[in-house]
Amino acid sequence: MTFQYFLELAGTGFFAASGAVVANQKSKPDWFGVTFIGFITSIGGGSLRDILLGSYPLSWVADVNRIYVIIAGIVFTSLFFNKLVKLQKIMFVFDSLGIAMFTVLGTEKALFFHCHPVIAAIMGMFSAVFGGVLRDVLTNEVPVIFRKEIYATACLSGALVYLFSRWLDAPRDYSMIISMAVIFTIRYVAVKYRLSLPQFKRES
Amino acid sequence: MTFQYFLELAGTGFFAASGAVVANQKSKPDWFGVTFIGFITSIGGGSLRDILLGSYPLSWVADVNRIYVIIAGIVFTSLFFNKLVKLQKIMFVFDSLGIAMFTVLGTEKALFFHCHPVIAAIMGMFSAVFGGVLRDVLTNEVPVIFRKEIYATACLSGALVYLFSRWLDAPRDYSMIISMAVIFTIRYVAVKYRLSLPQFKRES
Amino acid sequence: MTFQYFLELAGTGFFAASGAVVANQKSKPDWFGVTFIGFITSIGGGSLRDILLGSYPLSWVADVNRIYVIIAGIVFTSLFFNKLVKLQKIMFVFDSLGIAMFTVLGTEKALFFHCHPVIAAIMGMFSAVFGGVLRDVLTNEVPVIFRKEIYATACLSGALVYLFSRWLDAPRDYSMIISMAVIFTIRYVAVKYRLSLPQFKRES
Repeated sequence: MTFQYFLELAGTGFFAASGAVVANQKSKPDWFGVTFIGFITSIGGGSLRDILLGSYPLSWVADVNRIYVIIAGIVFTSLFFNKLVKLQKIMFVFDSLGIAMFTVLGTEKALFFHCHPVIAAIMGMFSAVFGGVLRDVLTNEVPVIFRKEIYATACLSGALVYLFSRWLDAPRDYSMIISMAVIFTIRYVAVKYRLSLPQFKRES
Repeated sequence: MTFQYFLELAGTGFFAASGAVVANQKSKPDWFGVTFIGFITSIGGGSLRDILLGSYPLSWVADVNRIYVIIAGIVFTSLFFNKLVKLQKIMFVFDSLGIAMFTVLGTEKALFFHCHPVIAAIMGMFSAVFGGVLRDVLTNEVPVIFRKEIYATACLSGALVYLFSRWLDAPRDYSMIISMAVIFTIRYVAVKYRLSLPQFKRES
Repeated sequence: MTFQYFLELAGTGFFAASGAVVANQKSKPDWFGVTFIGFITSIGGGSLRDILLGSYPLSWVADVNRIYVIIAGIVFTSLFFNKLVKLQKIMFVFDSLGIAMFTVLGTEKALFFHCHPVIAAIMGMFSAVFGGVLRDVLTNEVPVIFRKEIYATACLSGALVYLFSRWLDAPRDYSMIISMAVIFTIRYVAVKYRLSLPQFKRES
């Protein structure tokens, strides 16, 4: 088991847990519903990326360990739900690290499939945010990424930094760390100072 | 035409009809909308399974008969709508048999693609319930499987029974019947006695 | 650059613009949200068609020019938003031409993949309307094609006209123009005289 694989499993389990917390707060579904939504939140972004790229088999379809960490994440959430809800700051840190990692890995995978760098950046962003979009659609909410926080924009910026860094022939590890740091910092600053993107247009 | 193919066509037409009934009750769409939603309800679960597995061509894309039975199911629903709405018990029996069949066939197909048994069970459950999830998302409802009835859980249980039975080297027909009986029974008992899964968590 | 490729790019940019206008009117998302929704509106129908057909790589994944025209369409919409909203009639003409073109191209592509003509017509209709369905689902609305205007029905009719014309051995260009004219005319007449399809059924 490589270190990267370990991080991916950890991220998968964490996203399932955070998906379960959000799903539960919104529409009070039963145990099955929470598990289902946690599952979709966790694997949705990577699955969409792989389907768009035509990369088969999908990683969770080929690797049952990802299912096990998702189940573990949901059970963990059930046992420590009230504590998790109170630890919002730590959850936020883990969530930001998770989206940063998935952005970089998604961007890399798209490059591996010979995508143009601009399209690779879009694929990286999709990998990170689409699970959350599906979670919001399934719980009948307007996806949170359309409304607040500089979330997907941070992913897109980080993906472009990664691509620029690789274009400069910087080593992979270095590019990954720089890119993840950019994503984390943008998101942290945006939330701390309540920055948001401007509205598109008002009708006059 | 094998007996299994006949059953699949019958199930496809029936799901289109039941999708049309539910769509019409919820948001009063026009004729096209009802047909579209009936179509998606009917082919959504199997299409998702095939896309996740990378199994091409999708069965309805390769076989126009499935389109004809869907259209027949919608026209039939239009002609006998008020009677169908009154025959809820019989609809429930057919619906339960349909999801039981699609669960087993979906599980088998995933095994054929060399999926781990746990993932095959998830694929079987997706085949049976995802058409209904898409129907609810398109009519702007929180999917019914997140909120009530032991529906998807019954499918998952039946899929596991099927896998266990095949693991014991029981013949395919026998395993199918046992599995479908389990799904049907769980669902029947759950609806009759108004059983439901516990809520995930309340915040305290 | 062929003339058809030029038309496809123009249609892609236009759909992004019209998706941005509709998204902005509905839920007031920020800049990123509008861009994201414009992007999905523009590439959603063709992507679904290609995924259902197993046609890889998807056209926008292989061709970054489509991304550039989408971005150009969004920026243009931002600069001239209030004028665009007032020019509803011209927008309607372009939109109708766009869906007519995507219907025919989608139908052709499905035929190229050896689909039955009935299924090719469904694929053509999906290509034209599914971007709008995704846009409405993401902004938490019941898709407009289920509720008003003879929109998808016009696409389906045009696709059938195209297929019939090709079956009669009419040349491709001629069949395309006839089919697009049928789609445009049905839509224009339906909107002008406020025709709509009948409701499916009322419960009595």
